[in-house]
Amino acid sequence: MLAPGSLHDSLQDPLLGSIGFLNEVMSRFPDAISFAPGAPHLADLLDTDATRSVDVFVEHLRRTRGLDLHGARRLLYEYGPARGLINDLVAAALRTDHGVDVPPEAVVITVGAQEAMLLTLRALFRDAADVLVVAEPCFVGITGAARLLDIEVVAVPDTDNGPDLDALDAVCARLAARGRRVRAMYVAPDYANPSGTEMDRASRRRLLGTAEREDFLLLEDNAYGFTKSVASGHPPALKAMDGGDRVVQIGTFAKLCFPGARVGYVVADQPVRTADGRIRLLADELAALKSMVTVNTSPLCQAVIGGMLLEHGGSFAELARERGAFYQGNLTLLLEALERHLCPDGRAPQGVSWNRPSGGFFVRMRLPVTVDEALLEVSASRYGVLWTPMSQFYRGPGGDRELRLSCSYLDPEGIDEGAARLAAFLRDIGAHQARTA
Amino acid sequence: MLAPGSLHDSLQDPLLGSIGFLNEVMSRFPDAISFAPGAPHLADLLDTDATRSVDVFVEHLRRTRGLDLHGARRLLYEYGPARGLINDLVAAALRTDHGVDVPPEAVVITVGAQEAMLLTLRALFRDAADVLVVAEPCFVGITGAARLLDIEVVAVPDTDNGPDLDALDAVCARLAARGRRVRAMYVAPDYANPSGTEMDRASRRRLLGTAEREDFLLLEDNAYGFTKSVASGHPPALKAMDGGDRVVQIGTFAKLCFPGARVGYVVADQPVRTADGRIRLLADELAALKSMVTVNTSPLCQAVIGGMLLEHGGSFAELARERGAFYQGNLTLLLEALERHLCPDGRAPQGVSWNRPSGGFFVRMRLPVTVDEALLEVSASRYGVLWTPMSQFYRGPGGDRELRLSCSYLDPEGIDEGAARLAAFLRDIGAHQARTA
Repeated sequence: MLAPGSLHDSLQDPLLGSIGFLNEVMSRFPDAISFAPGAPHLADLLDTDATRSVDVFVEHLRRTRGLDLHGARRLLYEYGPARGLINDLVAAALRTDHGVDVPPEAVVITVGAQEAMLLTLRALFRDAADVLVVAEPCFVGITGAARLLDIEVVAVPDTDNGPDLDALDAVCARLAARGRRVRAMYVAPDYANPSGTEMDRASRRRLLGTAEREDFLLLEDNAYGFTKSVASGHPPALKAMDGGDRVVQIGTFAKLCFPGARVGYVVADQPVRTADGRIRLLADELAALKSMVTVNTSPLCQAVIGGMLLEHGGSFAELARERGAFYQGNLTLLLEALERHLCPDGRAPQGVSWNRPSGGFFVRMRLPVTVDEALLEVSASRYGVLWTPMSQFYRGPGGDRELRLSCSYLDPEGIDEGAARLAAFLRDIGAHQARTA
Repeated sequence: MLAPGSLHDSLQDPLLGSIGFLNEVMSRFPDAISFAPGAPHLADLLDTDATRSVDVFVEHLRRTRGLDLHGARRLLYEYGPARGLINDLVAAALRTDHGVDVPPEAVVITVGAQEAMLLTLRALFRDAADVLVVAEPCFVGITGAARLLDIEVVAVPDTDNGPDLDALDAVCARLAARGRRVRAMYVAPDYANPSGTEMDRASRRRLLGTAEREDFLLLEDNAYGFTKSVASGHPPALKAMDGGDRVVQIGTFAKLCFPGARVGYVVADQPVRTADGRIRLLADELAALKSMVTVNTSPLCQAVIGGMLLEHGGSFAELARERGAFYQGNLTLLLEALERHLCPDGRAPQGVSWNRPSGGFFVRMRLPVTVDEALLEVSASRYGVLWTPMSQFYRGPGGDRELRLSCSYLDPEGIDEGAARLAAFLRDIGAHQARTA
């Protein structure tokens, strides 16, 4: 029998156990309507010909690099540069669509945003004095990467306007007093997963100021930014604001295109002074680290994504137009349906409340009772509706009276029926709690 | 200016610098014949239609999982299980072709062999007392993964019959005396990169015995095993021998299919006792860790590889037949050409010698002079032939009178001409050394 490695205890933690339970419940109640998966909706993609996108990208390679057909195709089949193959396309789209002006060599194409997080943490964190700050409830990808690297995480609460910045100040002071320091903070200012929170412009400015004053970096996760409605006056990405040189931006094509490509990117234009006194970019460090993790991101997958981007004029915004509108529509439907079914008389059931994000996939709902696996079982078996207990997004205790609703995976017709079932469940909830207690 | 992360110094080390230099020399002498790249030869693949392989795999999914076309295609576009999508195909091929009998759930599909190495090291190594043993010269992927995870590596020499097993005994004793222990040893018994070494059956038995006695695991890299000529009586993989339960086998489709898919696998059927007393497989630990590194291997890429495997009757051996024969042919040509050009009178130039592997991509050559960047520059500029200084495959000093020749990337006609150029270079070598000294 093997003695386990040092991560072993944490692999047994409730987080992974709960996700397993959730999957298991979903498989036992296949007819339940599920607000649980945060995965993108792919129905429109299932007839898509990925080959066409690859062909478009191969033509682009021939044109821009002066290659013949075999020379261009060879680049998709071989090992490729650790930094990536579509960096120029991504840098151009970042400039046009996000106002983020960096050279292609400041971009590293990664195996999804997850690898980008792992590489960035590994490159930045120097010793046990360095701490990562997150807002809780928090996306499990970043806390997982930190755990794999034995990096200490400190959480501040996620408020309705993003991370609690007073709490952040307090954390900085407390750590400094103990000889520790915040090295980086993970933040998703545009519709965080799982809370759906969007930060306003003033909070963004204050956060950038705190990072400057306390000398730490911001890891900005931009996964859901594309669901912003274009016309409205949303604040820019942190990376595009004054002080954006403190920001490492992490993006993914999982939602904008499809997750099965496993293509993401990281923008890291920060200069780093090497041991021998030369200056290079943080992106160079990330590319060197990447060669030790996955060597390079599949160039075939990069070609599919690069082709999809080219088919939309090289623009994130064009690529996002249809799907962004779809998710906007789903979110609006969900919020309207919650209102209609839960507040028929204009008032929500006692103790039930939720936020109203203007984009993203998620709604954060607070209940007056403990939200646990037993309650999920009742919801699934008797009311035919599923959701995610928010406690999954806390590393320790927390979120035990909250749940996450996702609108991304359902068809519009499912959303209304799901909200009706949820309303029925929530009306009865006090009784269930008494029974299961 | 950013202060660098804790890996920073090692990222500046000679290893990465030399690879940069090698690429730079190759780009300056594009007409040189290069024995440097260990990458697979892909000419026959450039007209291949990956779409056809995907279609074959989609049909397989429909048949084996009872899915309709959209249901099957959905599995390629969505997030997938961290463990993988083609585990059943890989497990079946391992059983048929390698005599390795494990259930599909003991296999984890990874982003190339590189991710498999990283995950395995992270799962196994418990604390700073655990040491990884390698044979030097050593594949840089494993030492890179160890470096990323701050795992200490101890090297034994790679002899003409694989790792020096007497030296290994001495390492075990020395570590034990210091309260340390070997946790795992990386070994590529079938034509190691960079040495081309193959271990004989007796050495394999002894190594398995040492692992049993000293209670460590063997990480068997099987990347080049497919180039064995089928008829000959090669020893089995370590994983297929008595004592193979001590072996974690790592494989890749980079050479068998193509590197751009970034698909590899790890076989980890060892039982692990969890903190709460349950038993699960090491593969379960690896899958959990993988969710923190890349979430899952691109199911689209797995479909391409799965389809290629199915198109060859689900057999590694069938899949390998043509390409294995091609590499066998190239290696034979290289060894014959070296003999013919370097030993016209039956004797090699003074102090020049090389091994004669029966498979794999690589030949290890010893020279009577220092093999460094200056010598490579001379070889490239005046003789039009490139190779890899062996010192790149040592973490510290070592290999400074050796080079690696690879036969994998060249066409047969290039090999003979390259060997002729190499011979001319080696005949003059004493003079060059005197001049550059």
